[in-house]
Amino acid sequence: MAGMWLLLSLFVFGLAEAGKLLVIPSDGSHWLGMKPVVEELGRRGNQVVVVVPEASLSMGPSEQTTTLTYPVNYTKAELEANLADQLNTVVSIDISTDLARFQTFIISLDLLQTFILRTAEGLLFNKDLMKKLQEYNFDAILTDPFEPVGAIVGEYLSIPAIYMQVNLPCGVDTLASQCPVPASYVPQPLTHFTDHMNLWQRSVNLVRALLKPTACRRLYTVADEIASRVLQRKTSIVEIMSRAALWFMRSDFAFEFPRPLMPNMVMIGGMATKKPKPLSQELEEFVNGSGEHGFVVFTLGSLISQIPEAKAREFFEAFRQIPQKVKAFITHGGSHGIYEGISNGVPMVMIPLFGDQGDNVQRLVSRGVAETLRIYDLTSEKLLVALRKVINDKSYKEKITELSAIHRDRPIEPLDLAVFWTEFVMRHKGAAHLRPAAHELNWIQYHSLDVIAFLLLILVTVIFVSVRSCMFCFRKCFRKTQKRKRE
Amino acid sequence: MAGMWLLLSLFVFGLAEAGKLLVIPSDGSHWLGMKPVVEELGRRGNQVVVVVPEASLSMGPSEQTTTLTYPVNYTKAELEANLADQLNTVVSIDISTDLARFQTFIISLDLLQTFILRTAEGLLFNKDLMKKLQEYNFDAILTDPFEPVGAIVGEYLSIPAIYMQVNLPCGVDTLASQCPVPASYVPQPLTHFTDHMNLWQRSVNLVRALLKPTACRRLYTVADEIASRVLQRKTSIVEIMSRAALWFMRSDFAFEFPRPLMPNMVMIGGMATKKPKPLSQELEEFVNGSGEHGFVVFTLGSLISQIPEAKAREFFEAFRQIPQKVKAFITHGGSHGIYEGISNGVPMVMIPLFGDQGDNVQRLVSRGVAETLRIYDLTSEKLLVALRKVINDKSYKEKITELSAIHRDRPIEPLDLAVFWTEFVMRHKGAAHLRPAAHELNWIQYHSLDVIAFLLLILVTVIFVSVRSCMFCFRKCFRKTQKRKRE
Repeated sequence: MAGMWLLLSLFVFGLAEAGKLLVIPSDGSHWLGMKPVVEELGRRGNQVVVVVPEASLSMGPSEQTTTLTYPVNYTKAELEANLADQLNTVVSIDISTDLARFQTFIISLDLLQTFILRTAEGLLFNKDLMKKLQEYNFDAILTDPFEPVGAIVGEYLSIPAIYMQVNLPCGVDTLASQCPVPASYVPQPLTHFTDHMNLWQRSVNLVRALLKPTACRRLYTVADEIASRVLQRKTSIVEIMSRAALWFMRSDFAFEFPRPLMPNMVMIGGMATKKPKPLSQELEEFVNGSGEHGFVVFTLGSLISQIPEAKAREFFEAFRQIPQKVKAFITHGGSHGIYEGISNGVPMVMIPLFGDQGDNVQRLVSRGVAETLRIYDLTSEKLLVALRKVINDKSYKEKITELSAIHRDRPIEPLDLAVFWTEFVMRHKGAAHLRPAAHELNWIQYHSLDVIAFLLLILVTVIFVSVRSCMFCFRKCFRKTQKRKRE
Repeated sequence: MAGMWLLLSLFVFGLAEAGKLLVIPSDGSHWLGMKPVVEELGRRGNQVVVVVPEASLSMGPSEQTTTLTYPVNYTKAELEANLADQLNTVVSIDISTDLARFQTFIISLDLLQTFILRTAEGLLFNKDLMKKLQEYNFDAILTDPFEPVGAIVGEYLSIPAIYMQVNLPCGVDTLASQCPVPASYVPQPLTHFTDHMNLWQRSVNLVRALLKPTACRRLYTVADEIASRVLQRKTSIVEIMSRAALWFMRSDFAFEFPRPLMPNMVMIGGMATKKPKPLSQELEEFVNGSGEHGFVVFTLGSLISQIPEAKAREFFEAFRQIPQKVKAFITHGGSHGIYEGISNGVPMVMIPLFGDQGDNVQRLVSRGVAETLRIYDLTSEKLLVALRKVINDKSYKEKITELSAIHRDRPIEPLDLAVFWTEFVMRHKGAAHLRPAAHELNWIQYHSLDVIAFLLLILVTVIFVSVRSCMFCFRKCFRKTQKRKRE
């Protein structure tokens, strides 16, 4: 009897606790950041269904989850060739001026359209799959808004959506969450500015902030059309995302400049993406043999194989000339590498390639923990100068050690936080209590423009009435005086 | 040998981990909210020194801490009489109009000046005590900014400051932390507005938001002078508080309307102020004897003894007429009572007396979990109607149960969060990485007014040059035509 009671309560408890989660990730390094959360949610007994295309760069089955795939009209080889093309385009532009960076921003928006479209048709117009997803009766969706297809699916299924993201190019996260972004000290994406800007930079930044809605409209032109078609009403990606239950920000203030947040933003930056594995015997021997000089770790992320040969030669030329003094880290400034660098307290030489990497680099350079080089005009000499600087100048090591201590000192691990809040949304069918009333105001109301007009109207009326009253009194007195004079 | 090693490492570990914390609390219910954090910090091995005046309403020795007292020129009886006076002043005002509430706001600011001055002279000009505090060599100060004397001491000792607070009357917390407070949906203190305001309310709110710096100057007139005298330079309380390492907000979004936050704001609302004690035998019997009708809990906070007798008679008249149906809670809307009500899922009848209580009440009434009555025109009939409503209308109970579930479902307990972040500030000598660059901008720069002027200048120059060029060309063409005509 007691045993049955235990079983029954376990069953009830299980039903009450475990949820059904739909996951639609984004490709490349984006999936690396989401995978640990998804696997941990599965391990905790939730039913997690991950939907990925048949061809992708990095996405595939994960532990403790169900994976559903759908056919797409491209192959993995085509994806890689496409990315190499894009990399070559971006790498060949000199982005040392604000105008050039603005052009790169526009180019990036247009290039990203291809990402957005890539999976949209394969998933959204796959009737069998969409029907299957509907039958699952999910409690929530966890998706990467980098590819807005997940947002559209969430809206189609009418389930609460959690967006896990790094830096979104058009700033749709702050736009859709109604998060204040003062243009005077919060740099816009792809400006490469820090939080200390001069008058010119603040001007560029304000213009970029004002262009945000236009940029998002440009980025999501086709996505908006597809969303309207799937949902059978006129809508936009920004509108859909404004209904987000939560925003998981893959960021941390040991790295990101301090700026306002909304209550439904959860900072989960610096989550360990995978457990450290022991080194291979060959690497182990290499590291142990490095002696007093230490060693340098060099990586340019998942796209290293696409680097032009001439550039590669410059790297090897520089490496030949250093005695591998203290530990340093050469990186392209992708978000995973950055947090590994911070976490392990290693000074960095950063060679940003594209996307948010240029912004990331500025954040670390301004903290005095990294030096940056441009891939556009990289030479072995420049690389050597930068490497020697971060290795020999002790201040880099001191500052990164401090940053590492701050970053690692937290009340709760980012992974646990992400898992908790995902389950929270499943338990409470959303997070309505974190949704600001700002969403119910239009642009004019939000900025109190109608109030200012109203207050001005009152002021003008008061002045007008006062002046007329004064004039009336004045005329009366004046007439009397004239009359008296005549008398 | 091994034992000695263990002892030594414990000693080193203890030195590295434990910090020295100065605590300057504020009186009344404020101390209730800070005490558990202070005691827990002491229990964890930190050296915690609490500085309180010899005469106070509620402050006194706490467990695991050192208490230092200083003489003041008033007695506890005088404090109580003073408070009763103030209560009578505020309770006798009908605050049903926006203008009346604005007047109460101004009155409150002036009344609070007395609080600010009360301990300032006793503590700040007590040379022996100040010298003693300096010798302690504290790592940080935890203080309640309601009485800014703690802020001045922290600045005097040049140690990082943590402010633990509920709602500060002039909104100095958002002003000093540079937290955006959009006037269109974030109600200003003491307006009694919700986050859904009509045009008139938004106008009042915007005016109140614009008056914030003036209100703070008025509230801190004398405090600013004292601070300048103690620190021997021209300064202000707002300026001192702008250097806060952290703001502990005794608030939670199950209660507070969602609004922007700054990275150095930590939400710790709903912290259990004391462990529940078993009921006395008399109360236990009363509760058990209430049968199917349940019982009503009635409290008006720490100032109940000062309530006018006529009002008290109205309460007893109403209580005589109810059969104590379901559990309900009659409260004045103080922050501790509110969180106990939410936490235990009990619908409330709220009779706000003064301070932030009127605002608190609006937050719960707008969520459909409470009814409110004005103490100004309270009658037993009105009380009965309200009580019967929250007891018999099932929606109150349903909604408060939901709110309770949301409030209690959190990744980490508020007490643990407060303890963690206090120790964080002690470990890292502040929290500089959470400080926005906004603090280095003046008002014009922050609002990008210089940028707007600069951009307008460019625009005007471009228009001017274009028009002049056009006119020049036009004139040239025109002259040629005329010449030709003459020919």
